Amino acid sequence: MRSLSAPRADEIEPFEVMDVLSRAQALEAAGRRVVHMEIGEPDFSAPAPIVEAGMRALREGRTAYTATLGLPALREAIAGYYASRFAAPVAPSRIAVTSGASGGLLTVAALYVAPGDEVLVPDPGYPGYRHFVRAFEGRARPLAVSAASAFQPTLEMVRGAWSERTKALLLGSPSNPTGTLIERGELARIAAFIAERGGVLVVDEIYQGLVYGSEPWSALGLPGEVVVVNSFSKYFCMTGWRLGWVVLPAGAVRAFEKLAQHLFISAPSAAQYAACAAFDPSSVSILEERRREFARRRDFLVPALRAAGLAVPAEPQGAFYVYADCGRDSRAWCLELLEREAVAATPGVDFGANGTARCVRFAYTRAMDELAEAASRLRRFAACAPSA
Amino acid sequence: MRSLSAPRADEIEPFEVMDVLSRAQALEAAGRRVVHMEIGEPDFSAPAPIVEAGMRALREGRTAYTATLGLPALREAIAGYYASRFAAPVAPSRIAVTSGASGGLLTVAALYVAPGDEVLVPDPGYPGYRHFVRAFEGRARPLAVSAASAFQPTLEMVRGAWSERTKALLLGSPSNPTGTLIERGELARIAAFIAERGGVLVVDEIYQGLVYGSEPWSALGLPGEVVVVNSFSKYFCMTGWRLGWVVLPAGAVRAFEKLAQHLFISAPSAAQYAACAAFDPSSVSILEERRREFARRRDFLVPALRAAGLAVPAEPQGAFYVYADCGRDSRAWCLELLEREAVAATPGVDFGANGTARCVRFAYTRAMDELAEAASRLRRFAACAPSA
Repeated sequence: MRSLSAPRADEIEPFEVMDVLSRAQALEAAGRRVVHMEIGEPDFSAPAPIVEAGMRALREGRTAYTATLGLPALREAIAGYYASRFAAPVAPSRIAVTSGASGGLLTVAALYVAPGDEVLVPDPGYPGYRHFVRAFEGRARPLAVSAASAFQPTLEMVRGAWSERTKALLLGSPSNPTGTLIERGELARIAAFIAERGGVLVVDEIYQGLVYGSEPWSALGLPGEVVVVNSFSKYFCMTGWRLGWVVLPAGAVRAFEKLAQHLFISAPSAAQYAACAAFDPSSVSILEERRREFARRRDFLVPALRAAGLAVPAEPQGAFYVYADCGRDSRAWCLELLEREAVAATPGVDFGANGTARCVRFAYTRAMDELAEAASRLRRFAACAPSA
Repeated sequence: MRSLSAPRADEIEPFEVMDVLSRAQALEAAGRRVVHMEIGEPDFSAPAPIVEAGMRALREGRTAYTATLGLPALREAIAGYYASRFAAPVAPSRIAVTSGASGGLLTVAALYVAPGDEVLVPDPGYPGYRHFVRAFEGRARPLAVSAASAFQPTLEMVRGAWSERTKALLLGSPSNPTGTLIERGELARIAAFIAERGGVLVVDEIYQGLVYGSEPWSALGLPGEVVVVNSFSKYFCMTGWRLGWVVLPAGAVRAFEKLAQHLFISAPSAAQYAACAAFDPSSVSILEERRREFARRRDFLVPALRAAGLAVPAEPQGAFYVYADCGRDSRAWCLELLEREAVAATPGVDFGANGTARCVRFAYTRAMDELAEAASRLRRFAACAPSA
């Protein structure tokens, strides 16, 4: 009998980190205290004004489907956020509220990716990028990025990889897994190049707001067919609410809406009412304090990892990840670290094939005392580890 | 310049009902009292025990990502529901909690539909079916169903349409837009045929529980590769919570999980905690009372539509729709009814091409007094309408 599942399903790779997570849970069940640094999720939950607005919506029964593109009030609030925080004015009509950034990336891929189209994606990079492209029968073409360009694409790379089959470049800044930013001028040059070639630039700004030592900015306003994807999950600490948004070129809104009508109907309602409170000064002051806390954690963790013998090839400037080189097979290294020291981290292979097999992603989504504990365990691990 | 959007985006049709809805909203803004019968959404919100459980989850910060396949407690509760309500035992490990039935249908399509695969879908039927298939580069092949088989596929139709390229049959029972059920024995014969051909049977049971004059049952347990899709939206009145589930063949769970990990991460968390209370006796007694109310509405509306000169070719037995033949172009008829009598209904063309241009879907998702008002307006409309 032929295989019943489609080739895309047969080809999709699991997250290696899930093996780490299962083993970590087994260790915990056996009584060990695991430091979880494998999870790409803030340890904070949503600020109180957001939670209260969500509870109010539930209590008042505001739980019907919304318009497919989202509550008008929320689309306006997001536009206001771009104007006031990033000096990037955008019409609310260009904003689509989505079921997480996942729903946004999925619909964007459905909108642009025809079978056989190539989409350039950074390697290492968020694995979802290539899977969304593959899901719609496109081909993700990896750009081998390295510390030399802060693990971000350069115009030279994009130009070198662009072909007749190339439809788009999809990148994240700050990047998962490296926490690095693309240089603003370089992104502008890349946007101009792609506009000239008639392609699409998709910028995943899901970690926007979580930058340290500089002020956040947006790719909005760059020339050409530019799509910006964002989320309430990370900076706003609303992961499980499943809410994100996409800023579309005006000419793409209608097609996006028709797809989303059928693929999703609408994003969760109470989450949308809750998110209307996300930009209030009372929420923002809580979120900015958390941003300072993430900065403190980064400032502690990077030297701590280096002291434990890991290389951190590019200084992370955002998100909540440190991408480190452990000098040997990182899958084995992660499992050994977990068994011996009960510290969970993510093997680099989850993020691509370009040098990832020696790298590890650490998430600093734990409080300082836990990070300090992890650092001491890592030092002990390094002291006793067999040399590579 | 080439078109930037993919063919699937260019081909997707909008919902005609959206034009009705916009015009209805304009009339309301101008002060008219519109009876909304165009919307496929219960007028009830979730029972209090569900809402309270959701608020508790928000208050307690249980808003992180869950496991991709859903909270173990919810998967167990769903399995318990099948066992106790439908005498259809199923292992919780075969249940995947999804972002609405939409997320379920999307992932099922991603799992099974390879480019060029044909999927049989009823016409008239839920338009999402063909769009999910098209999204993943499959071809939806319509089965022209009529009142003769209660607008449901028969074994004869399936056998006649099945070819080397056919991968699956996807049907809904109770059906949207017709509210009709497939006969249990006929579905069993169809399942056996599809199993013999090595295909997949996907049964959309999103309106399960909303049947009148008979007891609900499930396609679970039929032989072969059978997938059952369900939702908390309709019977449980949780549309905007965006929560559904899929019961998968044991061998398909892992591939579904890998796809869902990347495409969705997980379904909304608070909605999942809330839904754990959906099967409590206190919720079920509220839901069963609403079911009786829907039955009363159906019993009122079907003769009322007939009295207003519409034909109802197949008695609806479930969901909350009446599919009626208005005897002429139903798009024009719907707009005229809206302008003259401020009653909003959905033109049949939203549901396919098979005789749909003369048909209209009425949703009885309004209280009895509003339905009575609609009935009187429809009689007046019929009395003054130009003959076809």
